[in-house]
Amino acid sequence: MKIVIVGATGTIGKRVTEFLSEGHEVITVGKTSGQFQVDIADPKSIRALFEKIGKFDALVSTTGDVAFVPLKDLTNDHWEVGIRNKFLGQVNLVQIGKEYINEGGSFTLTSGILSQTFIAAGTSATSINRAVEGFAQAAAAEIGRGIRINVVSPDLLEDSKAAFGSFFPGHYGVIGCRVAQAYMKSVLGIETGRIYKALNNDYVS
Amino acid sequence: MKIVIVGATGTIGKRVTEFLSEGHEVITVGKTSGQFQVDIADPKSIRALFEKIGKFDALVSTTGDVAFVPLKDLTNDHWEVGIRNKFLGQVNLVQIGKEYINEGGSFTLTSGILSQTFIAAGTSATSINRAVEGFAQAAAAEIGRGIRINVVSPDLLEDSKAAFGSFFPGHYGVIGCRVAQAYMKSVLGIETGRIYKALNNDYVS
Ligand SMILES: NC(=O)c1ccc[n+]([C@@H]2O[C@H](COP(=O)([O-])OP(=O)(O)OC[C@H]3O[C@@H](n4cnc5c(N)ncnc54)[C@H](OP(=O)(O)O)[C@@H]3O)[C@@H](O)[C@H]2O)c1
Ligand SMILES: NC(=O)c1ccc[n+]([C@@H]2O[C@H](COP(=O)([O-])OP(=O)(O)OC[C@H]3O[C@@H](n4cnc5c(N)ncnc54)[C@H](OP(=O)(O)O)[C@@H]3O)[C@@H](O)[C@H]2O)c1
Repeated sequence: MKIVIVGATGTIGKRVTEFLSEGHEVITVGKTSGQFQVDIADPKSIRALFEKIGKFDALVSTTGDVAFVPLKDLTNDHWEVGIRNKFLGQVNLVQIGKEYINEGGSFTLTSGILSQTFIAAGTSATSINRAVEGFAQAAAAEIGRGIRINVVSPDLLEDSKAAFGSFFPGHYGVIGCRVAQAYMKSVLGIETGRIYKALNNDYVS
Repeated sequence: MKIVIVGATGTIGKRVTEFLSEGHEVITVGKTSGQFQVDIADPKSIRALFEKIGKFDALVSTTGDVAFVPLKDLTNDHWEVGIRNKFLGQVNLVQIGKEYINEGGSFTLTSGILSQTFIAAGTSATSINRAVEGFAQAAAAEIGRGIRINVVSPDLLEDSKAAFGSFFPGHYGVIGCRVAQAYMKSVLGIETGRIYKALNNDYVS
C-alpha cells in the first residue's frame, strides 16, 4: 500500500510512520521536514502536494494546529488558527485528496481526547475536534468509491507530557505505540465513519 | 426573567417565543424582523445589539445558516457560511453576551439532528452542529459566574417538512411545541453543558 502521512515528523506522526513503514511504502510529509512539504492551511499547497505524490491508497493526517487560550481571552483570531489548520486543513486533505486516492482507499484524521473531556483553555480544541469528527463521519457516508474515513482521538501522549502535561491534570499519558495501533486499525482495517479513541483514562466512554 | 431570543421570528424561534413569553419579558431579535436586529456573522453588530438591550438573564439562539451542498461540490466558500453564521455567530453571542448576562444566567444554542445522523448534502451541517455542541459543553465548564450553556438539537420540524422534507428521507417531523419544550428545559432548568435532543425518530440515541 502507498501511504501518505501528513505530519509524519511530529510526536504522533513519527510513531505512526514507524509502524506503517513495515510492509508499506510510506511517504512522509511535514511543513518544513519530511520527504514532501505542505501547508495544510493553504488548499493550493495541498493540491501541489498531491500533484507531486500522484495516486495513493491511504492518507493519514497527524497534524493540525489549534489555539489553547482561556475562554475569556479567546478572540476570533484564535478561532481562525484551529479553523484554518486542524479543521479546514484536514477537511481539504480529504476533499482535494479524494481526487487522487485509489478506489477503496482510506483517510485517517486526528482529533483528540478534548472532544470528550474539558480543560481550562481547551474550548477551541474541543469545538474543532468535534467538527473534525463530524466531518469524517458524515463525509464517510457521502464520499463513495469505497473510500473509508476514520478519526483517531488520542489522549495526551506520554511523549508530550513534559510539554503539555500541566494543561491536562489527571491525565497519565498514553504510550505512543498504543496510539499508533489506532491508526493501524483505521488504515489496515475495513471500518468507516469510526472514531478510534486511544486512551489511558476512564473519564470518557 | 429577561430573555433575549435571537432568531425569534423563524420557524423554531416563533414557537420558543410563544412558550417563553408566558411569565417572562421576551426580547425578539431577527436579522430584518423582531424588536431588534442583528447579523450574528458580524461581531460588531452583536456588540451593538447588547449595548441596546442591556443586561439580561437568558439568551436563546434559534438561528444560524449553514450550506447544504453535496460533498463533491462543497467548496471553502460553502464552509464559510456555516463557520461565520451557525458556528462563530453562536460562539460570539456567548463570548460577547457573557459581558452583559447577569450572574447565574443561561445561554441556549441550536445545533440539529444532523450532528448524529447523516444525509446527502449534510456534511457541512453535521460538522458545524458538532462544533456548536463541543463549544457549548467546553465553554459551560470554563465560563464561570454560575452561567449555564446548553444546546437544543432538534429533529426536522413538522413545520419545515414541506420546505426541507426531501432532504430528510425517513424523518417524520417533530412538532414545534415539543421542540419548544427543549428550550424551556434549558432556560428554566438548572443543568449546564447538556445537549437536549427533540426527536421524532429512534435513529440516534
Ligand atoms: N501530542 C499529543 O499528546 C496529542 C494528543 C491528542 C491529540 N493530538 C493532536 O494530534 C495532532 C498532532 O500532534 P503532535 O503532538 O504529534 O504534533 P507535533 O509534534 O507538533 O507535529 C506536528 C506535525 O505536523 C506538521 N505540521 C505542522 N504544521 C503543519 C501545516 N500547516 N501543514 C502541514 N503539516 C504541518 C509538522 O511538520 P514540521 O515538523 O515540518 O513543522 C509535524 O510533522 C494535533 O492535531 C494535535 O492536536 C496530539
Ligand atoms: N427548521 C428545522 O426543521 C430545523 C431542524 C433542526 C435544526 N434547525 C436549526 O435551527 C436554526 C433555526 O432554524 P429555523 O428553521 O427556525 O430558521 P428560519 O425559519 O430560517 O429562521 C431564522 C431566524 O434567524 C434570523 N436570522 C437569519 N439570519 C440571521 C443572522 N445572520 N443574524 C441574526 N439572525 C438571523 C431570522 O430573522 P429574519 O426573519 O429577520 O431574517 C429568523 O428569525 C438553524 O440553525 C437550523 O439549522 C432547524
